[in-house]
Order: sequence, then C-alpha cells, then structure tokens
Amino acid sequence: MENNYVCIMAGGIGSRFWPASREQKPKQFLDIIGSGKSLIRMTFERFASYIPASNIFVVTNKMYKQQVLEHLPELDESQVLVEPARKNTGPAVAYFSMRLQAINPNGVYVMAPADHFIEKEEVFNTNIKKALDFASKENVLLTLGITPTRPDTGYGYIHYGDANNNGFNKVQSFREKPDLETAQKYLDDGSYLWNAGIFVWSAKSILYSFEVNAPELYKKLNEGADKYNTSEEQEFIDKNYNEIESISVDYAILEKANNIFTLPSDIGWSDIGTWASLHALTAEGENKIQINSEDAVLDEVENCLIRVPKDKLVVIKGLEDFIVIDEEDVLLIYPKSQEQEIKALRNGLNKKEFT
Amino acid sequence: MENNYVCIMAGGIGSRFWPASREQKPKQFLDIIGSGKSLIRMTFERFASYIPASNIFVVTNKMYKQQVLEHLPELDESQVLVEPARKNTGPAVAYFSMRLQAINPNGVYVMAPADHFIEKEEVFNTNIKKALDFASKENVLLTLGITPTRPDTGYGYIHYGDANNNGFNKVQSFREKPDLETAQKYLDDGSYLWNAGIFVWSAKSILYSFEVNAPELYKKLNEGADKYNTSEEQEFIDKNYNEIESISVDYAILEKANNIFTLPSDIGWSDIGTWASLHALTAEGENKIQINSEDAVLDEVENCLIRVPKDKLVVIKGLEDFIVIDEEDVLLIYPKSQEQEIKALRNGLNKKEFT
Repeated sequence: MENNYVCIMAGGIGSRFWPASREQKPKQFLDIIGSGKSLIRMTFERFASYIPASNIFVVTNKMYKQQVLEHLPELDESQVLVEPARKNTGPAVAYFSMRLQAINPNGVYVMAPADHFIEKEEVFNTNIKKALDFASKENVLLTLGITPTRPDTGYGYIHYGDANNNGFNKVQSFREKPDLETAQKYLDDGSYLWNAGIFVWSAKSILYSFEVNAPELYKKLNEGADKYNTSEEQEFIDKNYNEIESISVDYAILEKANNIFTLPSDIGWSDIGTWASLHALTAEGENKIQINSEDAVLDEVENCLIRVPKDKLVVIKGLEDFIVIDEEDVLLIYPKSQEQEIKALRNGLNKKEFT
Repeated sequence: MENNYVCIMAGGIGSRFWPASREQKPKQFLDIIGSGKSLIRMTFERFASYIPASNIFVVTNKMYKQQVLEHLPELDESQVLVEPARKNTGPAVAYFSMRLQAINPNGVYVMAPADHFIEKEEVFNTNIKKALDFASKENVLLTLGITPTRPDTGYGYIHYGDANNNGFNKVQSFREKPDLETAQKYLDDGSYLWNAGIFVWSAKSILYSFEVNAPELYKKLNEGADKYNTSEEQEFIDKNYNEIESISVDYAILEKANNIFTLPSDIGWSDIGTWASLHALTAEGENKIQINSEDAVLDEVENCLIRVPKDKLVVIKGLEDFIVIDEEDVLLIYPKSQEQEIKALRNGLNKKEFT
C-alpha cells in the first residue's frame, strides 16, 4: 500500500453553481450537499480512510492554494501542486505524474475530481483498491465507469467490450455527451457506462502514454525532470506552464491509448454539475424541495432548490420548479429548467466582484 | 403662526410591511419609497417648511423614542411624547392636546400619521394652512378629505354635504371600508372622500369634544392637568396610561361630534398601507417593476416589487405579480395578490426575533 497515492483535482471554478460558487471561492470549497463539509473535504476523507494523508496530493490553481490547506490541514504545503494557469486536466495529470515519479518511481495513484458526490463509499473504495492493485502490476490505464441509471445527456459515456483482465473490461471507445435518443440506446444496450473522470494508473504507465500520445506536452514538462520534488520545481512550473497546450486528459490520452480498462461501478455517483443535478440528488418529500434553512414557511412550493444563509428565515408561496440562491451580495431566482443560462449570465456581468 | 403646531403619530408597527417593517424598526423609520429618507423624516420636513421645528411634536411608543430623535435631530427630547402602551389614536390625541394646552392654550395643530405619502406637497400645505386658520377662529374639528381617484375598498370614506363654512364642507357621516360596489357608488356620487386620518383642530376644541363625547377618557387624563409640561408628566402617564381604554379618535370623537368639516383635497395621497399599494404608487416602466437595487438582471419579470439591500445584485427570471423582500435575516417571495396573508403569517412565527 505504500506505493498508493491520490491526486485530487481542485482547480475548477464551478461557474454553473453561481452565485454560490465564485471565482474566489468555488464549488469544491462549499458545503453544497448540506453535509456540514465542503466537497473537497468529503473527497479527502473518502480516500484518507485507507490511504495515508501524506500520500494524498492536490493540484489546484495558485488562487486556491490557501483554501486547500485550510480545508485539508492534514496536508503539508508541498502536497499542494500549484498551477499558475488553467490548462485543463491533461497538463495537470502529466505534472503530478512527474512529481510522483520523482518521489516514488513505483507510485500508483487515483486521480479524482474534488467536487463529486459518491453515495456508496464502501463499494467505491473496494473498486479503487482493486484498480490500484491491478494498475501496480500491469501497464494499464484504468477508469471507473459508472453504471448508468437513466439516459443522462449531461455525461460522456464509455463503451466497453467483453475482453477481460483481472475483472476489468477493455474500453472500446469514449463517447461524447449524447442526445436523448442515443443516451436511451446506450442505457438499453448495457455495455455503456458514464465517464466519471476518476482514473487509476501508475506514474510509469501514464507518463509512457503521454510520451507516445502527447509528445510535445511530455517534452516540455520533462525538461524539468531533475527539478521535480526539489526547491526548484515551482520556479520551473511558473516559467513553463503558460506555454503548454490546454487539453483534457481525455483528448490527450484516453481517446488514443489502447491499454484502457474499466470497472463497471454502481456507486451512487454524481458529478453535481449543476443546480438541477444537485436538486435531483438531494430533494426530499412529496414536494421535492431541497432547502438548507432551518426556518422556512413554504406554501404551494414544489420542486425547488432553496439555498440561503443557514439562520435566515425563508417565506415563499406559489413557486414551482425554481432555484432560489441567496448569497450575501447576490439574489438569484431562476426557473430550474433554464439553469443552463446561468453560466453565460454570470460571465456577462459587468461588475467582476459578483462573479 | 406662533400658535400653529404639528403632532406626528409614530407609534405603529406597520406589520403589513413585514419583513422590512419590524417591531424594533417599523415602517415609519424606513425608506420605503426609495427617496433616501424615512417616512417620518419626509413627514417632518413637509411641515417644517412652514411650522418651526420647536412646534413639531411626535407621539410614539417608548420603544421608538430614540429612533424618533435620531431621524429628527431637530427635536428636543421633550417634543417626543412617549406612550407606555399602545392605545390607538384616541388617547394619543387627548394626551397631546393636554400637553399643548399646558404649553399654549391657544394652540392649534395638525395631527398627521408619520407614514403616509403625499405627492402634491404644495396643495397639501396650502390646505393645511387654511385649516389651521379656520380652526384657530372657530370651534370646529377639521379633517382633510382626499378626492378619490378609484373605488378603493381599503379606505374609510367621509360623506360630506353642501353646507359650507370658510370653504369647508360639513361632514354628514363617516363610512367604514366599503365593498367594491359601494365604493363605486361613492366614487360616482362625488360627495364622498377618503378619510386620510389627517386632522386639524385647536387644543381647546378637541379637548371640549373629548369632555363631551369621551368623558371617561377625558377625566382620567385630566387628573394630571397640573402635571402636563412639567417634570412630573411622564410619571403620571406611565402610571395611568395602562388603565385607559384603547379607542380610535374616529370612534371616540368623530362619529359623535357634529362640528366636523372637511376640505376636499387632491394631494396625491397614499397611506402606503401594504406592499401592493406601495407598488401601485412606485412601479415603473412597461413591466411595472419597483426595485431598489442598482444592479439587477431581470428577464420576463412583470408587475413585481423587489426590495433588497441596496448593493445586492438581483437576478430574476420568469416571475409575475410577486413581492420579493430580502432582509438580512428574512427572505420573502410571495404572490402580490395574496399579500393580505403576510400580517397573519408574521404574527404566527415562533421565533420572535423575526418579527
């Protein structure tokens, strides 16, 4: 187990959760579920139950370094890898892999987003352990595939085949977010899984794949090979990261590599990507209401998500299918079915203090 | 003019304006219009343009004495008459009249609520001056009658006759809030006015009327005759006020006296009694929106009243005929047509800190 590591990706802005999620304090640092813990804290604790805190790392934007350390005081500063610019997941994975190679050439790790929800943690942990074990033995890239429960058009899909190795299925292809008809076909077919963006691989395997499939990116970051895990690492990153191409690990590696395997996992996963998906996850009762206030007088309110300061009294009558978000400086009252407009609306604001 | 005085009534709770209006800071102390001034300040300034501040008094509940002095720093503490209990307008009028009699036996005064709106201030002031002049010369009780502009069922009405004295019409009777059909008849008839609760009379005339028409109330307060305008006044009031019957000046005096005259006045008056009446007064533009925030993104929002902290960004889509009130500790989103429920809703709250 001493070769097992975790890399938590925590650099996103979560702009679909505006106005709760802000550039200065994005979604991963919020208690978005109502559990009393931030999402990054929940993610950390999930892994910390079987991987030592000293082996858990976070990659984030420099803007969020202090917040990461506040939410995860178990981490040493050196365990927070700081990106000077947002370059999508590809460079982040390559960067962490080079750091890990410098720490432990036999290192194997889970890469997981900081801001997802997993209901069945035991099943999840069992599957992750299996994956770490498999990835430590063979040159494979593993992805956790989520058994779909509905024809969701908001997720990418993994198409897998029968070929089997250590209980893992060979991935045939990755599919973009489908339309509803296609999503229904995927669901009926049974050989498609949701792509959760949770990966397991060894530093060695993934770096080899970068070298082959994304040689330019590999080359640029490998110029600092002798600097990783030394006092010169940050300076090298700060100088060279900006020149690197912004690309997702999906495009850079997964769509090209042919050593990818998946483990169909029924773990009650949600990426909590939007207010509506949070509502679907947490709404309660006959009227399907999700509200975080302890004092509320609701009458003829249905299918709404209501988020206010915790000790605020909420009195609402006659509202259906709405999102109500009351932040200190912003009040949003929006039809839930039109929440996809929120991101653009946020980006169009003149006063940047509200973003 | 040295005999002219003003008595501003400022003891109410304004519970129909909950959650903006609170027991600790009721409507009269709020900038409810969006003028930058509280209603009591606007009322004071209206009179102070032609009556010296030293002749302007306020009757209020002891809870609000400090707030009155903060909003009207021109007043000496002695100009704020403090009621230890809420007893409706009858005792307040009798109390102030006895104080005034002790100050100036020839005193004549306007009694006006602190929380009304008057659009045409010049017409109002001209009429008040006429009334003060008339009331200083004869034993009459004068009330400003508002020329109705619609068949309003929320106001009481004054029925006046032809008999005329100094340009004032004799009042035949006061009528309770009518149903719509009756209100329409009143409007068509032309001899009915809205009763605005703005009165003009001399201390002498109104006290005589109390002695005749409300002898018990008169007797109890007159026991302190030698204490008014002395250091013993407050102690006397604190001791005796609780025993006094709670009664409006309308019931105690106006419905009984036969020396009441009115001046039909077209002054753009509103008692701003409810959120909807405020909205009717202040809503702007094609979509009839009243909003106090400088930053707002409204889409498909019509006929709404929106009140939030001034520097708060408001983003609302798809809301029609709603009241949205965002106070620091309470958020209200309510159908405007059902606003009459708000008072009861407020009164039913368990946590008194929200009232």
